[in-house]
Amino acid sequence: MNHYKSVFTDWTLRIIWTGVLLSGAVQAEETGQPLQEQARQLFQPLPESMATPEFPATADQVKLGRQLFFDPRLSSDGVVSCAICHRSALYGTDALPKAIGAEHRLNPRNAPTVLNAALQFKSHWIGDRANVEDQATKALTGHVSFGNANAAAVIQKIKVLGYAPGFTQAFPNDPEPIKPENWGKAIGAYERTLVTPSPFDAYLKGNAAALNPQAQNGLKLFIHQGCVSCHNGVNLGGSSFQKFGVFEDYWKQTGAKVIDEGRFAETKNPADKFFFKVPGLRNAAMTPPYFHDGSVATLAQAVRIMGKVQLNKDLTEEQVNDLVSFLSSLTGQLPENFATEPVLAPQGFSATAAP
Amino acid sequence: MNHYKSVFTDWTLRIIWTGVLLSGAVQAEETGQPLQEQARQLFQPLPESMATPEFPATADQVKLGRQLFFDPRLSSDGVVSCAICHRSALYGTDALPKAIGAEHRLNPRNAPTVLNAALQFKSHWIGDRANVEDQATKALTGHVSFGNANAAAVIQKIKVLGYAPGFTQAFPNDPEPIKPENWGKAIGAYERTLVTPSPFDAYLKGNAAALNPQAQNGLKLFIHQGCVSCHNGVNLGGSSFQKFGVFEDYWKQTGAKVIDEGRFAETKNPADKFFFKVPGLRNAAMTPPYFHDGSVATLAQAVRIMGKVQLNKDLTEEQVNDLVSFLSSLTGQLPENFATEPVLAPQGFSATAAP
Repeated sequence: MNHYKSVFTDWTLRIIWTGVLLSGAVQAEETGQPLQEQARQLFQPLPESMATPEFPATADQVKLGRQLFFDPRLSSDGVVSCAICHRSALYGTDALPKAIGAEHRLNPRNAPTVLNAALQFKSHWIGDRANVEDQATKALTGHVSFGNANAAAVIQKIKVLGYAPGFTQAFPNDPEPIKPENWGKAIGAYERTLVTPSPFDAYLKGNAAALNPQAQNGLKLFIHQGCVSCHNGVNLGGSSFQKFGVFEDYWKQTGAKVIDEGRFAETKNPADKFFFKVPGLRNAAMTPPYFHDGSVATLAQAVRIMGKVQLNKDLTEEQVNDLVSFLSSLTGQLPENFATEPVLAPQGFSATAAP
Repeated sequence: MNHYKSVFTDWTLRIIWTGVLLSGAVQAEETGQPLQEQARQLFQPLPESMATPEFPATADQVKLGRQLFFDPRLSSDGVVSCAICHRSALYGTDALPKAIGAEHRLNPRNAPTVLNAALQFKSHWIGDRANVEDQATKALTGHVSFGNANAAAVIQKIKVLGYAPGFTQAFPNDPEPIKPENWGKAIGAYERTLVTPSPFDAYLKGNAAALNPQAQNGLKLFIHQGCVSCHNGVNLGGSSFQKFGVFEDYWKQTGAKVIDEGRFAETKNPADKFFFKVPGLRNAAMTPPYFHDGSVATLAQAVRIMGKVQLNKDLTEEQVNDLVSFLSSLTGQLPENFATEPVLAPQGFSATAAP
């Protein structure tokens, strides 16, 4: 899929998009197909869990992963946990333009929300992580994330913190359960439970009143203006790489000072220059700032810029407001197991029973 | 109280402690007074709230304060919130020897738990903050805490984040509600709700079975060995300054590399050398590492050292285990409004209504 996309030229993409618009949205209007029907063909409601046969997210893995997710003691400075860049209070983000990791090191890009993230076809903005498990695994020893240079020392720390039984339970068939890969798998298992059903899901499931009239106008625009050509499916995105800045260099609109060449940094293929993973849009209203570099503060401005640089359209204020209203209908309920932190066993203390 | 304490010599303190032991604990044994009765004379169960006439902790203040407590966007680097040094998952601590603040700056001392902290007669290990409100207020512009050099800029940030109505509601009689003092008061109001009733409270209220036999042995030792002379009252401490290292320099036992002269740094009074606030012991089992510098990893070792340097006693393994069992009975339930993070309004986004 990835290589397949990268051989397209900008013009090919434009033609595809136009095709989508003509065949899908416009045809829909012609046949008088109701909006809700159109939406059901383009989007799907969230599943209850994001577990897969490869990543089954067993109860023991989820329990362990939730503890690890909130535990800062495994980072090199004892400050960084997954929950630092993916805070519950900030809907699974850190509200920073670019994430700050162990030893206060600056990450190259914005930390996207962890909510529904397991639905994506790749992880990271440039797709250099296969999935949420791979992302977590590499974060544990990443210089700008957890900052642990030495995997063996981390394994020792995991044992000192009393996690050994949890790993054995979570990975019963693994003769050597305590390793970075399983740390990542456990965290991934937990993340696969973080789904946030929203008013839009209720709408897709049949409740037409779940979207107010302004949000329904926004949905129409979202389909008919072309946003849907990349932002479709269950996560309204997260399923392809696309060039950011088809009609105009993105930084001329976002004001970014650093020009990030995107997926080219990973593949070194010139056709991938300025290609980024299309982000899923669920909970977008709750997760400013926007884009791979967090260069834009408001959702309205992000929508305006997308119209300009991706679709060559100057959206009116009313259109922008309607689109923002639709995007707000993607704000879901925070999962209880994410809003509430688990209590971690205190380090170095062997509990004697208090009743 | 503070000046009063500081004029005592070490020898005076030793005589007072001996007096407490003879008059309280030993007398109790002589009269055959039951343990539960003795405990009720020395300790009190937690109140439902730590509000006072001066700090009434109104519902509006608590609501605002809880949001501010979990909001990192007000720190100079956007990373530090109160909840970073006082994490829910770690029972209101950060599990670090010394706290790390904005821009990764090292604090001079260990961050104690925020739970029940408002019961203390002073805040900070050396008592240089009057109360939790004063602590929070000064943290907002503190170099090693929130790192904001400029109070005016912080006030602007508070407004940009949409907190203005919250401040007006929380401080209805204040013509200028948005100021660092009210930031501190709101956070203090929230903190005054963070009480953690424990098995020991149930015991004090009449349920003798709330402490198992080992914890009851520990309680006896706690009273009769002399711990209670400083660790008494509702918070088992937090009500006086005392010299750390009466019978032996503390660092010889803790292994601390930095010799902290304690309250002397604040008062410059030689009589205050090595004086620290006696910490409250509630939830001690959940909040390693121990002491003002976090130099000791386990509660058992902390108990052993306290016996040695404060009471000149070599506690046996059994005594240490019993004391740790008693201290574990001070572990309370995490307040629901602390275990669960509030959702913060996203910056720079004016919500359009989604149903």
